[in-house]
Amino acid sequence: MILKPIEFVKDKVIILDQTKLPQKVVFLKLGNYEDVVRAIKEMKIRGAPAIGVTAAYGIALGAQKIITKNKDDFHSQLNHILSTFQATRPTAVNLFRAVNRMKQIAQRNTDIDLIKTALQAEARRIHREEETASEALSQIGSQLVENGFTILTHCNTGSLATASYGTALGIIKAAWKQGKKINVIATETRPLLQGARLTTWELIQEGIPATLIVDSAAGYLMSQGKVNCVILGADRIAANGDVANKIGTYTLAVLATENGIPFYVAAPTSTIDLSIASGDEIPIEERDFKEVTHIEDKPIAPEGVKTANPAFDITPHLYITAIITEKGIVTEPYEFKLRKLVEEVT
Amino acid sequence: MILKPIEFVKDKVIILDQTKLPQKVVFLKLGNYEDVVRAIKEMKIRGAPAIGVTAAYGIALGAQKIITKNKDDFHSQLNHILSTFQATRPTAVNLFRAVNRMKQIAQRNTDIDLIKTALQAEARRIHREEETASEALSQIGSQLVENGFTILTHCNTGSLATASYGTALGIIKAAWKQGKKINVIATETRPLLQGARLTTWELIQEGIPATLIVDSAAGYLMSQGKVNCVILGADRIAANGDVANKIGTYTLAVLATENGIPFYVAAPTSTIDLSIASGDEIPIEERDFKEVTHIEDKPIAPEGVKTANPAFDITPHLYITAIITEKGIVTEPYEFKLRKLVEEVT
Repeated sequence: MILKPIEFVKDKVIILDQTKLPQKVVFLKLGNYEDVVRAIKEMKIRGAPAIGVTAAYGIALGAQKIITKNKDDFHSQLNHILSTFQATRPTAVNLFRAVNRMKQIAQRNTDIDLIKTALQAEARRIHREEETASEALSQIGSQLVENGFTILTHCNTGSLATASYGTALGIIKAAWKQGKKINVIATETRPLLQGARLTTWELIQEGIPATLIVDSAAGYLMSQGKVNCVILGADRIAANGDVANKIGTYTLAVLATENGIPFYVAAPTSTIDLSIASGDEIPIEERDFKEVTHIEDKPIAPEGVKTANPAFDITPHLYITAIITEKGIVTEPYEFKLRKLVEEVT
Repeated sequence: MILKPIEFVKDKVIILDQTKLPQKVVFLKLGNYEDVVRAIKEMKIRGAPAIGVTAAYGIALGAQKIITKNKDDFHSQLNHILSTFQATRPTAVNLFRAVNRMKQIAQRNTDIDLIKTALQAEARRIHREEETASEALSQIGSQLVENGFTILTHCNTGSLATASYGTALGIIKAAWKQGKKINVIATETRPLLQGARLTTWELIQEGIPATLIVDSAAGYLMSQGKVNCVILGADRIAANGDVANKIGTYTLAVLATENGIPFYVAAPTSTIDLSIASGDEIPIEERDFKEVTHIEDKPIAPEGVKTANPAFDITPHLYITAIITEKGIVTEPYEFKLRKLVEEVT
């Protein structure tokens, strides 16, 4: 299946609205950067690599629509756009990396029209780089998946999340395409049900056998010997190998460790943030209470109940068997090896 | 709050329909035993102690409605009723204990009218015993809750689940009534959301500060030092102290152990099943896929997706800090101590 969850065509950013899946396949044509900002905030598009790509296209779109001929005015408006995208979501580092790259492109050129063209080119380059990285890491990671394996995964890390092949789900697809007979257990991933809505949908499209479970059934299945490995993605990886990822990841890591099951994190090197020493420093987004108290506008809790709704958690590196990137598979000690990997010229 | 989730009045079993809470408070007047059976299967009434009490009343009601004067015919019809209740749900032992007690009462008497009266009396006795046990265990368990504690609980173990004061939630209420300033974190408890719908509702009624979270956020909050202890209920406790309880319990036990947080199971001794050596022998109910793929008839997953939906899991006793019963608090070694407790004459 060739699924294009993000495209930049002429003067529109086109995204597949992931909040409508799997019931409806709706593409949104976003004609101005504010709509792109809103789509990211409302998680119509989500997943660390996909957010980075979408923000880059959104910035290119925003720049294209600036009508001034005055350079200072142009840069002032562009800076506003850049900082608006920067403030959409706090945890995934791909967003900040994309915004910074776009900022540098704008600073490197002087002519307004040249900047506009260069921003588009840079956005497309970010997209292509993510595609290349995710294909490479999928092939590399698929070595760890043996014939007959049942793989547990969390949230959605496929084409929808990455604007390309996928990370954890990319590995699963690659193993399947190699003819390995595998089964996938997908956690539903409350509150926004990316596992139930998106991962099972992608797996069904590929014909890969999938079983959907509620999040809290994962531990029991692991304890019953029904899981051979856990593979999931990352929103940000600190220099020491600590991983910020969808809420519930830490829980799965502890359970996998307790049951002697390999726990793999799959992420492009664009997700590694060497400026952050450990997971303690990664900001965790607290999202709206309604995600917990409602399911698609339907209340499931008493009115006025207090909630805590952290969208991500931190998994200390000690629980992680390996981090799978497009440049290779990294194991402990992460500190040294991740730095080497990121700084390596490919 | 005096909440009566189950009553037997004249020729009706009256239950509070827990599938409608918290949006609607609906009492169902069930005039024949088949309706009581259905209410248990459909989880309009749930929670191990409450299922036992409801089944006992349902059997008394069924017996009352048998119109034959022929003793063999009466016993044949009654046996059918007994085995129908026995087959409603497989995991909670209180159900089987109640059915067995009712069966013994029927065998002990000869006159049909006497049996009918004795069955009603026995059902009321089972109910009263559960009330007395849950009040006692709540008082005993409240010693473990210190002023300022934040307690994490799972599923619903209050008045709704026990037809009385509650088990884990009973302990929380008792501690609160003693003037201890406590906070409760309630997991939503997918798939049927007993935490979101019932526990927060009961806590709000009592005025106890409560925070609702998705199940997979529990681990992160524990790792952040935000939980002082975990208290939850049990559906069946094996002779060695292994506990069958709502799916997700094992996960919380592993997480609590990993984070050095006390993990308490609160249950009346009627939940202990000495005939079962370990948790491996406890049957785990697999419930309908629709509980996972739908939320109140609304699909949240692609049509036709395969699911696994175990309603309970097994927590090995090694993860359990203590089991709180109406006869006292039990710690390792459970094997010997649980037997002593159950066989003790009070």
